[in-house]
Amino acid sequence: MDKFENIPGGVCAASGFQAAGVYCGIRKNPGKKDLSLIFSEVPASAAAVYTTNLVKGAPLTVTKKHIADGKAQAVICNSGNANTCNADGIEIAEKMSALTGEALGIAPEDVVVASTGVIGQPLNIAPIAAGIPQLAEQLSPEGSSEACAAIMTTDTVKKEVAVAFTLGGKCCHLGGIAKGSGMIHPNMATMLGFLTTDAAVSPAMLQKALSDNIQNTFNMVSVDGDTSTNDMVVILANGLAGNAEITEEGEDYDTFAQALNAATVPLCRMIAGDGEGATKLLECRVTGGKTLPVAKTVARSVISSSLTKAAMFGEDANWGRVLCAIGYSGADVDVTKVDVVFQSAAGTVTVCENGAGVPFSEELAAKVLHEKEIDILIDLNDGDASATAWGCDLTYDYVKINGDYRT
Amino acid sequence: MDKFENIPGGVCAASGFQAAGVYCGIRKNPGKKDLSLIFSEVPASAAAVYTTNLVKGAPLTVTKKHIADGKAQAVICNSGNANTCNADGIEIAEKMSALTGEALGIAPEDVVVASTGVIGQPLNIAPIAAGIPQLAEQLSPEGSSEACAAIMTTDTVKKEVAVAFTLGGKCCHLGGIAKGSGMIHPNMATMLGFLTTDAAVSPAMLQKALSDNIQNTFNMVSVDGDTSTNDMVVILANGLAGNAEITEEGEDYDTFAQALNAATVPLCRMIAGDGEGATKLLECRVTGGKTLPVAKTVARSVISSSLTKAAMFGEDANWGRVLCAIGYSGADVDVTKVDVVFQSAAGTVTVCENGAGVPFSEELAAKVLHEKEIDILIDLNDGDASATAWGCDLTYDYVKINGDYRT
Repeated sequence: MDKFENIPGGVCAASGFQAAGVYCGIRKNPGKKDLSLIFSEVPASAAAVYTTNLVKGAPLTVTKKHIADGKAQAVICNSGNANTCNADGIEIAEKMSALTGEALGIAPEDVVVASTGVIGQPLNIAPIAAGIPQLAEQLSPEGSSEACAAIMTTDTVKKEVAVAFTLGGKCCHLGGIAKGSGMIHPNMATMLGFLTTDAAVSPAMLQKALSDNIQNTFNMVSVDGDTSTNDMVVILANGLAGNAEITEEGEDYDTFAQALNAATVPLCRMIAGDGEGATKLLECRVTGGKTLPVAKTVARSVISSSLTKAAMFGEDANWGRVLCAIGYSGADVDVTKVDVVFQSAAGTVTVCENGAGVPFSEELAAKVLHEKEIDILIDLNDGDASATAWGCDLTYDYVKINGDYRT
Repeated sequence: MDKFENIPGGVCAASGFQAAGVYCGIRKNPGKKDLSLIFSEVPASAAAVYTTNLVKGAPLTVTKKHIADGKAQAVICNSGNANTCNADGIEIAEKMSALTGEALGIAPEDVVVASTGVIGQPLNIAPIAAGIPQLAEQLSPEGSSEACAAIMTTDTVKKEVAVAFTLGGKCCHLGGIAKGSGMIHPNMATMLGFLTTDAAVSPAMLQKALSDNIQNTFNMVSVDGDTSTNDMVVILANGLAGNAEITEEGEDYDTFAQALNAATVPLCRMIAGDGEGATKLLECRVTGGKTLPVAKTVARSVISSSLTKAAMFGEDANWGRVLCAIGYSGADVDVTKVDVVFQSAAGTVTVCENGAGVPFSEELAAKVLHEKEIDILIDLNDGDASATAWGCDLTYDYVKINGDYRT
């Protein structure tokens, strides 16, 4: 088998994890689940990363406090309301933890709490209080998909992933679910992502692995340039795989970090491809950067350019917009060295060399850009650094979805 | 009269300036003029500011060289092609200057050259060579509107302004035309703007007045977050008003700087209100900032937020998106002190106080946001600095216009 085998099961793929999702009544539409629970049968190492937005959802403050000891055993998350900019936000988030702890027979401080949805509308605890016992009852090792459905907002597809790998001869699993469709432009943190693993990893090494990982995964996704107030990725590692606990860097740590990457990159692609209103997944791969920050800045600038995104929606090989976005990125680039290529399952078309246009077949370009997954390849020809960023096209539906989000 | 009286005449309002605009054949559609000329009967002091995009249009390089001596007498500008990222760009821009100089009987080095349109398509000199003699023949003191029409790309309205004011007892005039609808997110420079005045101002003081002015005017406009490769604002001052030449700071300089502001602020509002696909002009006025950079950063972040822009299009009082954009702006803000008000001709509605929602009438909010000009008022309650930024809503038509721009 591959070093990292894709397996089903999502956030329950790892041993000892169960999950569930229900409709409790936060949303008006009973057809859309709105409360989600993930539970580890045993206490787990926990690590998290949070939004850098100065406006932070109350659940983030509470979660930060709860996992300060590096341990957690459950995640409770509602959709439909972000519990952000509310006077009683902290109190409500604490209540969610307490009710979850009570239902599961664990300490409230071992509960991670998260919320996603509209900012600035008071969150009523009543439906949540009614929903939590239901969730506890419905917990199941097959519950990942239900839990995933319950954290979705404008998402149109569920985002689940899991991989199997080996550590010291023990078979380990790492899986996750994520949500995120709009207000996606993570900065040192990300949208909601919940990851679980049965590998034994110390809290410190788990935090290191997660913090390092997101720099090249979730932080390289942009849908609309808006960094959410409630971004958070949490990982729980319960050690049930039986491997020797990872407590320092080394071969096992590297394998674990690679497994994490094998799970988070597909989640990033799912989030970008399901960006609000998106019809296409865009992957921008930059090579030849003078430094890593240069390569990353260029990749993020191109993937964030409204004009480039609109051109991709229109399947228009308007590479001038790619050059323009490289030029205003702020990165140290010699624009006279830049090559640009559009690539997809339908073929490859070189549109720019040494910063100037080259003749290309519009017919081939149209075929390449008609695909659902487009790669924008940029060679800066100025060094060895490379970076990848993920985004999506800008469409009528993005405007439609966001023109009247609250109602 | 007011200190700065609005007058007609645009870029020809100042004594000694003439202008013209023709269709020469750069564009496919003969209904849209594509070549523009502004001429001063006498040599003028000249100053300019340029895009900070590393990818710079060839005309900017040529213009910078031509006005290095602080003098110019004419501006030639084509639309439909940016003459950027072309191997022969400089050569073509020099030819445009030479042909213009020849037709007007002035040195090629006294010609400012500008281009706007698609990036990366070779610009054919033939139609321009045919158009320049026509332009020279049609030059007229009533030509501002024709010249303005010829620099438009996706603009839907002409952007002209002129003011009269007094310097040392002499009546002076300052007017301008501008274009800009998409790829609008100036950074230390701006879209195309051509300003003329008959006030006598030394090149150094003219450059200072312009460079200072744009920090609070053109640089505070955003349509889509994309900083163009061809942004440029040029001002010519021919001194025909007969005032004592302004050669240092003082009362006259201050009056001139205010006149410049009286002309550029309306142009900024026109550019933002005519943003690609826009249905509404947004003005974000920030007060109570700890420092000026804080106030400016917050104003620009809010006006640039795709989610806030889409909510304004949908006339949805989703103030959480305003708070979110303040929070990720990077500015030093105490989010628990922030107040937000939406205001328009239909009324005023306070939606957020001290960083948390307050009850408001959705009915009133809907009326306020139904207007064509919306003010987003933000009090940071943290100091004395204030700033204003201009933008527009994000609409289906922005996507439509940019989905297939080249064809």
